Amino acid sequence: MIKVGIVGGTGYTGVELLRILATHPEVKLTAITSRKEDGLPVADMFPSLRGRVDLAFSSPDKAKLTECDVVFFATPHGVAMAQAPELLAAGVKVIDLAADFRLQDIASFEKWYKMPHSCPELLKEAAYGLVELNRDAIRKARIVGNPGCYPTTMQLGLAPLLKAGVIDASHLIADCKSGVSGAGRKAEVATLFSEAGDNFKAYGVSGHRHSPETLERLSKLTADKVGLLFTPHLVPMIRGMHSTLYARLTKDIDNAALQALFEKAYKDEPFVDVMPFGSHPETRSTRASNMLRIAIHRPNDGDTVVVLVVQDNLVKGASGQAVQCMNLMFGLDESTGLMHVPILP
Amino acid sequence: MIKVGIVGGTGYTGVELLRILATHPEVKLTAITSRKEDGLPVADMFPSLRGRVDLAFSSPDKAKLTECDVVFFATPHGVAMAQAPELLAAGVKVIDLAADFRLQDIASFEKWYKMPHSCPELLKEAAYGLVELNRDAIRKARIVGNPGCYPTTMQLGLAPLLKAGVIDASHLIADCKSGVSGAGRKAEVATLFSEAGDNFKAYGVSGHRHSPETLERLSKLTADKVGLLFTPHLVPMIRGMHSTLYARLTKDIDNAALQALFEKAYKDEPFVDVMPFGSHPETRSTRASNMLRIAIHRPNDGDTVVVLVVQDNLVKGASGQAVQCMNLMFGLDESTGLMHVPILP
Amino acid sequence: MIKVGIVGGTGYTGVELLRILATHPEVKLTAITSRKEDGLPVADMFPSLRGRVDLAFSSPDKAKLTECDVVFFATPHGVAMAQAPELLAAGVKVIDLAADFRLQDIASFEKWYKMPHSCPELLKEAAYGLVELNRDAIRKARIVGNPGCYPTTMQLGLAPLLKAGVIDASHLIADCKSGVSGAGRKAEVATLFSEAGDNFKAYGVSGHRHSPETLERLSKLTADKVGLLFTPHLVPMIRGMHSTLYARLTKDIDNAALQALFEKAYKDEPFVDVMPFGSHPETRSTRASNMLRIAIHRPNDGDTVVVLVVQDNLVKGASGQAVQCMNLMFGLDESTGLMHVPILP
Amino acid sequence: MIKVGIVGGTGYTGVELLRILATHPEVKLTAITSRKEDGLPVADMFPSLRGRVDLAFSSPDKAKLTECDVVFFATPHGVAMAQAPELLAAGVKVIDLAADFRLQDIASFEKWYKMPHSCPELLKEAAYGLVELNRDAIRKARIVGNPGCYPTTMQLGLAPLLKAGVIDASHLIADCKSGVSGAGRKAEVATLFSEAGDNFKAYGVSGHRHSPETLERLSKLTADKVGLLFTPHLVPMIRGMHSTLYARLTKDIDNAALQALFEKAYKDEPFVDVMPFGSHPETRSTRASNMLRIAIHRPNDGDTVVVLVVQDNLVKGASGQAVQCMNLMFGLDESTGLMHVPILP
Repeated sequence: MIKVGIVGGTGYTGVELLRILATHPEVKLTAITSRKEDGLPVADMFPSLRGRVDLAFSSPDKAKLTECDVVFFATPHGVAMAQAPELLAAGVKVIDLAADFRLQDIASFEKWYKMPHSCPELLKEAAYGLVELNRDAIRKARIVGNPGCYPTTMQLGLAPLLKAGVIDASHLIADCKSGVSGAGRKAEVATLFSEAGDNFKAYGVSGHRHSPETLERLSKLTADKVGLLFTPHLVPMIRGMHSTLYARLTKDIDNAALQALFEKAYKDEPFVDVMPFGSHPETRSTRASNMLRIAIHRPNDGDTVVVLVVQDNLVKGASGQAVQCMNLMFGLDESTGLMHVPILP
Repeated sequence: MIKVGIVGGTGYTGVELLRILATHPEVKLTAITSRKEDGLPVADMFPSLRGRVDLAFSSPDKAKLTECDVVFFATPHGVAMAQAPELLAAGVKVIDLAADFRLQDIASFEKWYKMPHSCPELLKEAAYGLVELNRDAIRKARIVGNPGCYPTTMQLGLAPLLKAGVIDASHLIADCKSGVSGAGRKAEVATLFSEAGDNFKAYGVSGHRHSPETLERLSKLTADKVGLLFTPHLVPMIRGMHSTLYARLTKDIDNAALQALFEKAYKDEPFVDVMPFGSHPETRSTRASNMLRIAIHRPNDGDTVVVLVVQDNLVKGASGQAVQCMNLMFGLDESTGLMHVPILP
Repeated sequence: MIKVGIVGGTGYTGVELLRILATHPEVKLTAITSRKEDGLPVADMFPSLRGRVDLAFSSPDKAKLTECDVVFFATPHGVAMAQAPELLAAGVKVIDLAADFRLQDIASFEKWYKMPHSCPELLKEAAYGLVELNRDAIRKARIVGNPGCYPTTMQLGLAPLLKAGVIDASHLIADCKSGVSGAGRKAEVATLFSEAGDNFKAYGVSGHRHSPETLERLSKLTADKVGLLFTPHLVPMIRGMHSTLYARLTKDIDNAALQALFEKAYKDEPFVDVMPFGSHPETRSTRASNMLRIAIHRPNDGDTVVVLVVQDNLVKGASGQAVQCMNLMFGLDESTGLMHVPILP
Repeated sequence: MIKVGIVGGTGYTGVELLRILATHPEVKLTAITSRKEDGLPVADMFPSLRGRVDLAFSSPDKAKLTECDVVFFATPHGVAMAQAPELLAAGVKVIDLAADFRLQDIASFEKWYKMPHSCPELLKEAAYGLVELNRDAIRKARIVGNPGCYPTTMQLGLAPLLKAGVIDASHLIADCKSGVSGAGRKAEVATLFSEAGDNFKAYGVSGHRHSPETLERLSKLTADKVGLLFTPHLVPMIRGMHSTLYARLTKDIDNAALQALFEKAYKDEPFVDVMPFGSHPETRSTRASNMLRIAIHRPNDGDTVVVLVVQDNLVKGASGQAVQCMNLMFGLDESTGLMHVPILP
């Protein structure tokens, strides 16, 4: 059994890790830390876990964490990089669900996250946890930076096109929509039920942290210069993410060939579903599961391809993907403990 | 492996059966029928099942169903009683999620469901599928009438009090609230998003079919005459049911003893969680799981006990309970395939 | 034109006052205060008011407020009683939307609101702002304590029965359900979209501040001892309140006579709509309007009457009722500026 | 007083017309027809109108309609063109909220709406009811084709840029999101609460009827060839529409100049609000009002301008705009009866 610790278990990615790991057949939950909730049984905060998770929150405690085989950080940006070196030194693997180990470009990290990076050398070592595009590196990694939710959809939706060199990489548009849980479990007016409910808006249109992360990664897939216009929006639903991606075709390619690019790219992937050409995937078709679904359109047989990508932002977009990484890092079958059927309705 | 057939798989209880059975380790889905959708792959209607359920809907077909070990009816009232005799004769067990085998009183059935009952003798034989109150009968049954969603909460919430004889049975009040999925997947104006959303209302206040079912069952738990005032309401959420039960105490009993009645009644139950006295259970703490949670209150230490009961109406209130029955009928551990952790948030 | 000031305009009752007063033909909005937002144009915080309200928030400023004819307090409990004496002394009328002037019983106020009352003599003078039951006092009042949202529905739903002496006043049950806006615009985890959405729960079952307020007022309507069991619930909708009231009949009275009690009581009321016997009022039928609707049921022609009451908690349950009081206090037609048609869908 | 008739008052645009017209100071509601609901008081179907609209639905009846000064058609496509000629002949003005008089290109109409056009000559005469771009024609019109909801946002969001000739008109992208009420009040599975709730999806990506309408109109604003990629999405909210428009700049123009284009274009418009550069308008800031709000972005100061447009799809996107047209056609102030303050929260 893999002994697992979670640092910062009181947010949505934390409780989602708990939900997934509680039934993972190869995992023993060993420690879950929260400075503020020290001593509180996890199931008192999250009654959904009554009878399923017996742990109490404990004060962050090096000794307890170094007993683990792997520690997940479901914390604000900056926490993992402070604690990772010690854990790694003690032989503990680290998976960070925040941004500390996502961006290879330190200047970019420091610009967007407004803090210095405390362990640049680890950043170089860290694997980027987008499994489908980086499986081998993750398998060998001691430390993984789990991707952002939006970047997961943008990369998986654009990778086959960029790799095939059939689109103008310089003017990609990603019009993305996220459920409110993506904003986390912080007490904030903007995400109150009476503010975010029955409402729709864009945010961060002039610049969002997931833009540099995505750009950096997309640039590895093509020799062309990549330009990305990313527009996030907030949807009045709890879970779910829908990315609508627009790319101008530069090669003469028919629809069947476009579809084949995607089907071939993902044919052995357990968690990427390429739907029939012209489908309209719904976010709920992935709810509470690790599936991501993709469909390709080409309106009016014109020169623009539209890629629709859906996932559950808390699973494939966060905690499920992190467990997928863990499975790889420990030599397990990648889908172990992750075969939940989506909840519909 | 138990060969399972589902008659009428296009509604919410049908797709929920599919979700649960798709990962049930002892089940082989063998047939799913829909006259209207004959030939359509199930996953085309419910993309959440892509890659998980390979069956196509088939026209109702006796031969195919008699090959099964058990057939679930997720159909409108009246269908199961028409087909059950043949299936039973062929040695197939039957679990009806509609009302055909719930009410022992045929006159009451015919009054509330406005159709004659075609097999009164089977009705006598049928076990009522509320596991916690009727486990032995279900274990031996060939045919089970799965309880209504509201009646499940009312019976489990009131049974310990009635059995102990501490309340006035003649004036029970059940103020119940259900998510919209309880109304099914029929195209109807009243349950459109723009009608049921951002709205709350009572319905059927002057009389509802779940009243006679509950009355009949509660009456078996006490020698007293039972009177029940049941008020259902529609909540703008998809899944979830919350019943607020009021009963006047007739015995001098303190709060600890009240709580003990419930804890003792359900101490070995895998799917009934008695929360600490004075708790406020939330419907989402049971979402997409087979758990039902109960909490007891006694406002102002007065003479009225308030019992709060929550469940997912589609799971413990319907399809999960039906699978729980199936497990018993086939000698499996009762919780096999039913240990989903609730989805929160 | 009546010069109106609002103290504490950043919450939901504040912005609702602004919405209503912006089109009130006899009002000139003169000051709106917020210590924290001093200088910020109101429409920058609430873009719904762009072009309609030109004021900026100002620091609370006695001079500015004493220029007004009336000041509304849309503040936390305790603020109005601190400032009211000075305003009244300056000839300014006061309407408090919080609880400072609701409870006549000071001990009860201090128990439930956990603060001493700073002006008991004003409390005695203050009129309770439930117009339909207290119109004359309000008309003459210098200071009004606007009722709580739940108490408005409970009183208007029970008054005709209590006055007629046809029910057992000692065991009233009020099972009430409120939209989330009732919890205000404070940043709190419990009312985040991802917490309160797709969820239903009771709260405060063992005791809620609106209980003593309602009890005190109901007791004025009858010589009998009044007992009230009040159970509030949180509904995943923004606006709306639905109260389901249960009372045992003590007199032999038929349904037509029951209905007549209500129709007679409210026949001249512009904002109370008695629907046909056996109706199911929906909260949305009052959305964004000052209407309150009532329907009477008597299930199974039994001995219990069920009264259903719906309103918009922010309008008739708060800001609309406050403006209704203002109209009376200034000799205007009571419905001036309040004839909004409910928003449906 | 203008005598107004409504044909087809049982859908959402019909009831929204009723809500608006019920308080319009220059209107007398004279007839509202529905073949199916003949004789039913309107307020029995829509209790929000109790006490405010006294009419009953009547069977469509030429005599009754020809007494009106203007008739609104809130009907399925095809109804207005069948009845308009007679009404016009009788001197009655006509405003169609469906598509019969939107598209000047008859072949296009017949292709997208799959029916022959029965009065091409009237089509030529009809004014297109997008007031801000076509005010003079509407003022003189006997018959108006009210614009589609999406086209209203796309045209008002792109017009200033196209007129100024600063963008590449050939590759416009409109990523649009609509609340569910846009799908109407028909009983359909896809718009049930349990289907459309807690879910997000695109639809009609390969082609939607609002595309040719918008293309035809945009083409009148520029000599350049216009190309439009329009992607509609369904948002789990009742009312509201958010269009995110992308256009590549072809001229060297700075942000202030971009902003000035919009401010100048709409400076005298009562229902178009140009927000500060870089704002994020929310749909709820227009809820239940006739306002449309626009904000301009230019991410990374790059070569693409992003225009965000919000409106209430049932008001400015349908019934409010129709009343705005009526006001013009009858020489009233354009904003008469339309100054509702948006409902927030």
